[in-house]
Amino acid sequence: MNKTLELRAIEMGKNIVRMTTAAGSGHPSSGLALVHIVASLMYKQMRYDPANPWHPGADRLVLSEGHAVPVIYAAYADLGGAVGKSPAEKRALTLDDLKSLRELDSPLDGHPNPAEGFPFFDAATGSLGQGLSAGAGLALAARLNKIDKRIFVIIGDGESREGQISEALDFIIDHKLTHVCPIFNCNGQGQADYVSPQQSAEVLTRKLKAFGYKVEVIDGHNLAAIARVLKKVGTNETPMAIVAKTQKGWGVDSLKDKTNHGKPLPESEVPAAIASLDRAAAERKVPATGRIPRPPAPPAVDLPERPGRIDIEPFADAVKRAKLDDAVAKNKLSTRRVYGMALLALGAADQRIVAVDGDVSNSTFANIFAKAFPDRFFECKIAEQNMISVAVGLAAGGMIPFASSFAKFLVRGYDQLEMAAITRANIKIVGSHSGVSLGADGPSQMSLPDLGFIRGYASAGDGRGNPAAVILHPADAVAAYRLTELAANTPTICYLRTHRSDVALIYPQDASFTLGGAAQLAEGDAVTIVASGYMTTVALKAVRDLAGSGLKCNLFDAYCLPLNCEPILAAARKANGKVLVVEDNFVGGFYSAVAEAAALTGEVKVVGLTCPRIPKSGKTGDIILNALGLGPAAIAEKARSLG
Amino acid sequence: MNKTLELRAIEMGKNIVRMTTAAGSGHPSSGLALVHIVASLMYKQMRYDPANPWHPGADRLVLSEGHAVPVIYAAYADLGGAVGKSPAEKRALTLDDLKSLRELDSPLDGHPNPAEGFPFFDAATGSLGQGLSAGAGLALAARLNKIDKRIFVIIGDGESREGQISEALDFIIDHKLTHVCPIFNCNGQGQADYVSPQQSAEVLTRKLKAFGYKVEVIDGHNLAAIARVLKKVGTNETPMAIVAKTQKGWGVDSLKDKTNHGKPLPESEVPAAIASLDRAAAERKVPATGRIPRPPAPPAVDLPERPGRIDIEPFADAVKRAKLDDAVAKNKLSTRRVYGMALLALGAADQRIVAVDGDVSNSTFANIFAKAFPDRFFECKIAEQNMISVAVGLAAGGMIPFASSFAKFLVRGYDQLEMAAITRANIKIVGSHSGVSLGADGPSQMSLPDLGFIRGYASAGDGRGNPAAVILHPADAVAAYRLTELAANTPTICYLRTHRSDVALIYPQDASFTLGGAAQLAEGDAVTIVASGYMTTVALKAVRDLAGSGLKCNLFDAYCLPLNCEPILAAARKANGKVLVVEDNFVGGFYSAVAEAAALTGEVKVVGLTCPRIPKSGKTGDIILNALGLGPAAIAEKARSLG
Repeated sequence: MNKTLELRAIEMGKNIVRMTTAAGSGHPSSGLALVHIVASLMYKQMRYDPANPWHPGADRLVLSEGHAVPVIYAAYADLGGAVGKSPAEKRALTLDDLKSLRELDSPLDGHPNPAEGFPFFDAATGSLGQGLSAGAGLALAARLNKIDKRIFVIIGDGESREGQISEALDFIIDHKLTHVCPIFNCNGQGQADYVSPQQSAEVLTRKLKAFGYKVEVIDGHNLAAIARVLKKVGTNETPMAIVAKTQKGWGVDSLKDKTNHGKPLPESEVPAAIASLDRAAAERKVPATGRIPRPPAPPAVDLPERPGRIDIEPFADAVKRAKLDDAVAKNKLSTRRVYGMALLALGAADQRIVAVDGDVSNSTFANIFAKAFPDRFFECKIAEQNMISVAVGLAAGGMIPFASSFAKFLVRGYDQLEMAAITRANIKIVGSHSGVSLGADGPSQMSLPDLGFIRGYASAGDGRGNPAAVILHPADAVAAYRLTELAANTPTICYLRTHRSDVALIYPQDASFTLGGAAQLAEGDAVTIVASGYMTTVALKAVRDLAGSGLKCNLFDAYCLPLNCEPILAAARKANGKVLVVEDNFVGGFYSAVAEAAALTGEVKVVGLTCPRIPKSGKTGDIILNALGLGPAAIAEKARSLG
Repeated sequence: MNKTLELRAIEMGKNIVRMTTAAGSGHPSSGLALVHIVASLMYKQMRYDPANPWHPGADRLVLSEGHAVPVIYAAYADLGGAVGKSPAEKRALTLDDLKSLRELDSPLDGHPNPAEGFPFFDAATGSLGQGLSAGAGLALAARLNKIDKRIFVIIGDGESREGQISEALDFIIDHKLTHVCPIFNCNGQGQADYVSPQQSAEVLTRKLKAFGYKVEVIDGHNLAAIARVLKKVGTNETPMAIVAKTQKGWGVDSLKDKTNHGKPLPESEVPAAIASLDRAAAERKVPATGRIPRPPAPPAVDLPERPGRIDIEPFADAVKRAKLDDAVAKNKLSTRRVYGMALLALGAADQRIVAVDGDVSNSTFANIFAKAFPDRFFECKIAEQNMISVAVGLAAGGMIPFASSFAKFLVRGYDQLEMAAITRANIKIVGSHSGVSLGADGPSQMSLPDLGFIRGYASAGDGRGNPAAVILHPADAVAAYRLTELAANTPTICYLRTHRSDVALIYPQDASFTLGGAAQLAEGDAVTIVASGYMTTVALKAVRDLAGSGLKCNLFDAYCLPLNCEPILAAARKANGKVLVVEDNFVGGFYSAVAEAAALTGEVKVVGLTCPRIPKSGKTGDIILNALGLGPAAIAEKARSLG
C-alpha cells in the first residue's frame, strides 16, 4: 500500500509544481511539505466518497493553513472528486482542471473556498488559525447527529502562533472532542523568516501535553508512521494531536529554501523540479506506475427530514415558557432578554437550533436556552474567535448556530466572521449591550463601529441571491422575538444587535417584520425621523414631546440592514423633505444607508445624529446619551431646527 | 511591614465595597480577590511616585482584567495619587472621590481608562486578554530607552482563555522580556460559571512551564509570599510568571459566591460586608490603625528632547536610500513598497520610530526598515492581536510604532484597535494588499469592510481635538511617501492602506498632502469622479478614455478620511451636479462619506461603485476588478450614464 501511496504523493508533488507555475502564484513549497500526510488521508484513511463530498457521514479534512491548498487539489483531481456549487451542478475534477488554479471561472480558488464550487471543504480558510475551531464545530455537530465521523485539521507550525489555536485546543479538551485531530505541519519555515522556537516541534509537543493532549510526534514523510497515528484518531478517551516533522518544498530542491514561501517556479525551472521529484521517488524506490487507491466509503447516515422554515409559537406562549410574565406585565423587557426567550422557542421548535456563548450567557440571556437544552448549548468561555469559528463548523454540520456575547466582544471575532461570510456559513451572531446606552461600564464594553463593519457585508451579495449578511436591530420585545425568528429563517449570516436596558413594548404582540423593513410609528408633516434599536424608544419620547408642542413628525423604526429606504424617502417627500437619522453608534450604519439612498436623487435631505466621540462611563445609559447629544431633548432640538 | 500592608488591604476591601455600591454597578468580588497582591505592588514593590504617574522611569501596572479596577482606585486614592488628563491639570485623588466611580465627570471610569484622567494606567482595558501584550510593548520601549523598569500585568484566570494571552506569552519568550511579569489571579470563578479546568492554577502552571516560563505558584492572600516572588521580577534570565491562588470576594462572605460576578451589594448589605472584613482583619491580627506606606521612588531617567515634528528627506533621496531607483525609472512602484521606503526615511530621522509586523514583512515591506534598524523592529510572528496591543505599549513608552500586516489580517486586531482608540494610543497601522485588486489569492486575503469599520472612529472625536482615527489611502508612490510621513506626525491612530500592485506615478515628487484632503487630478464639466488608493489609477484610465470620446470629467483622488468633501461638492455643483465614487471595497468608506456630505443639502447627486459581492480568485487584480464591475470600462460606462 505505501508504495502505491508514495507514487500518488510524487504525482501530487509534480502537479503542485505545475499548477502553481501555470497560475503564476500560489505556495508550492507549503503543499509539498504535506504530500505524504495528505496522500495518506485522502486516498486511504478518510472514509469518504470523492464523487459525493456532500455525504453527511464522511470524515472531513480542514486545511487550516489554506495557502497549501494545491496539495488538496492535486489529490482530489487525481481521484476525480466532485466539484460544483450543488449536487445538481456537480462534475468530476480532472487533472487538466488543475491548470485553472486561481482563475475566475475555476472552482480552484487561491485558498480553500467551498462556496465557489469546492464542497470537499466545509470552511473557507486562508486567514490563519481558524481551522481547528471549525473542526471542533464539525465534531460537535456530528456528535449531536450521532455520526461517528472524524475531522482532521492540518495546521502550519507558524500558524499555530495564532492565539485562536490555543482557544480551540482548550475547547476540544473541555468538550472531550476525541474525533477531531489537529495535525501540526512542522517544517520550520514561515513567510518572512524561520518559525519561532516557540512553535518548534519540540515546544509545540510540550505545550500540547500541557493542554492535555495525547501527542504523537512523527516524520511527516513516513507513510507507515502517518498511517499508524491516523488510525488512532477517535479511538482514545483523550483527544490526540499529531506533530509531524516535515520539509518545506519536499522533493523539489529549488523550493526547499525559506525565501521561496509563496512563490511558484518560473516555467523554465519546472523540468528540473519534476526531475528532482523523480530522484526523490527513485531514492524511495517508488514504482513508476500504479493504481489509484480509492478511500473507504463513509458510513450510511439517516438524518431526519427538516422543514424549510421554522415557525415559533405566539409571543404570549413564549413569554410563559420563559417565565417572563412579570416583566411583560410591568411592560419592561430588554431586547437581550427576549433574545433568550426567542431562542428557547426556536429550540423547542427545531432540533437544529444550537447556541454558543463566551462566559456571558447570564448577560446575553443565552442561558435561558442553555438551561432548557443543555445538550445543544456549548460554553466557549472567554474566547470569541474560537466561538465564531465553532459556529461555522456547527453550521457546516447542518445546525443553525446562534453565537452570543457583548456586541463589543464579538469584534474579537470579526476576522472569523469574514471567513464565515466567504464560507456562506448560515450562522447567527448576537451582540448584546450594544451602543452607548450600556452606560456605566464605559467604552471598553460599548460596540460603536459594529454596524459600519457588518453593513459592508449587508450591502454586498453572496452570489446566491442573498445579502452576504443581514443586520437585525430590534427596538422592543416583540421585535426582538420576531427578528430572532427571522434570523433563524434567513439563510445567510445574521447579526442580531440587542440592548442592555429594559424598554416598554412598542409593537403589538402580533406585529410582523420583514427583511429590509422599517415600520412607521408616527406620522406627520414635519421632519421624518429614523431610529433603530434602543434609539427608537428615545426617539419616540422626542416625537411625543414634539407633537405636544405642535410639531408632528414621521417616525420610522428601521430594524434591518440592508434597508429598503424608499418608504422613508417617500414619507419625507410627502412631508418637508428632510430626514433625521439617530443612532447610538458611530457613522456607517442606518444613517449612512439612508444618506446613500437619498443622495442618489438629491430629493430628500438627510442629517444624522450619531455618537460624536469616544464615550466614557456615566451612571446610566440616559446620562451618556444626553452627554453625547443623543437624548430626547437633543433629538427634539435637532428636529425643530429641521422643521 | 506586612501588618501595615494587611491593614491597607482591608481598607481597600472596604472601599471597594462602598464605591461599587455607591456606583450601583461594578465588580467588587473581582477586586477583593486582588487586595493583597495590589497592596503589595502599589504600596511597596513598585517603584513609582503616586504624585507623578507620568514619570518615565516608574514601574508600571497593567490591569488586564479591567473589571477589577476598583481595587486600584482604592489603593490610589489612599495614596493620594494624581489624576488628570495632563500634568498641568493634575490633582490628588481622595477617598471621597471614590464615591464618584463611573460618573460622567469622574476620572474613575468603569474600566481602566487612562485618557479620561487616570494616568496611572497606560492602556485602556476591559476587553479581556490584551494587557500582557501592552505590557510587553512597555517593556520593549523601556529596553530601547535603557530604563530598568518592571511591568506587572494582572490577568484573570478566565481571561487567560483568550488566545491573545498565549500570543503574548510566546512574544515575551521570543524577545526575552524578563522585566514584564504576568500575574494570574486564579479564583476559579468566571461570570456565567466556574472557570474551565483548562484555566485552573494547576493547568495554567503546566502550560506556562511548557511555554518556557519560570513559574511561581503562591497564595495570593499571603503578603510574605507575594513579596518574595515580586522581588524576583527582572532578576532572572528567564521570564517569570506568577500563578496566584485567590478567593473571589475575599473577606466579604456575601460576595464569595460565584453568582455575584459584576454585582455590587445593595446599600443595606454594606454594614455586614464591612463587618465581614473586620472579622477577616481580626483573624489575621491586623492592627486597627497604621501609617500609609509610600512606594519607593522611581529611578531618575534622562530622556533626550524630541522634536515635535518629524521631517523626512526629499522623495528622491529616500528612493536612493532604499535602492529603489530602478523601480522609479520604470515608473512602477507599489504603495506598499514605498511604505517601507518611507519608514526607512522616518527611522533615519527619528529614533522613536519603531515597527512591528506579523511574519509578512517581505510583503508589507516593513523589512526595508527592519534591515536598516534591526533594534527597532520587532517580529510578532503570526499573531496580529498581540501585535496591535504591543504597539499600544510601545506608544505608551514614548515610541511611534508602525504595525503592519495584510489589511485583511489586521481585522484580527480590531478589538485591540478599539482599545487603542480608547487609550488614545498614538499608533500607526498599515494594511497592505488591501481591496479586491489583490486578485489571485482570493477573498480570504482581501480587506473589504475595513474602511467601514475605521471610518466610525475617523468620524468621531477623541475629545482632544483630533479625530479618533485617520485613514490615509495613497494612490501612488509620492502619496504613499508623504502620507506615511503625515501618519507619523498626526497624534492619533492612523490607518495607512496600501496596495499590492505596482502603479505609475501620479503626483510630482514635491506634491504635498494634508489631513482631510483630496487632490483634483482632472477637470471637466461632466460627472465628478472620486477615487482613492489603487482605484485612482483605474479611474484615471477611465477619465482619459472618456476625455478621448469627448466627455470631460472632474477626477478627485480622495486620500484621507475624515474627508473635507466641500471641494468635491463645489466642483460637482460647477459641473453637472453628479458625483460618482469608485472604491475597491464594500460600502462604508469614501462613497458613504461623500454621500453623507451631499445628502445634507441635496444639491449634488452621488452614485457609488463599490464591491458588489464577496469576490473570488482571479488571475490578476484587473480581471477581478472587471468581473466586479469596477474596471475602467465599467467606470466609463457609469460615468457616461451620468453625463
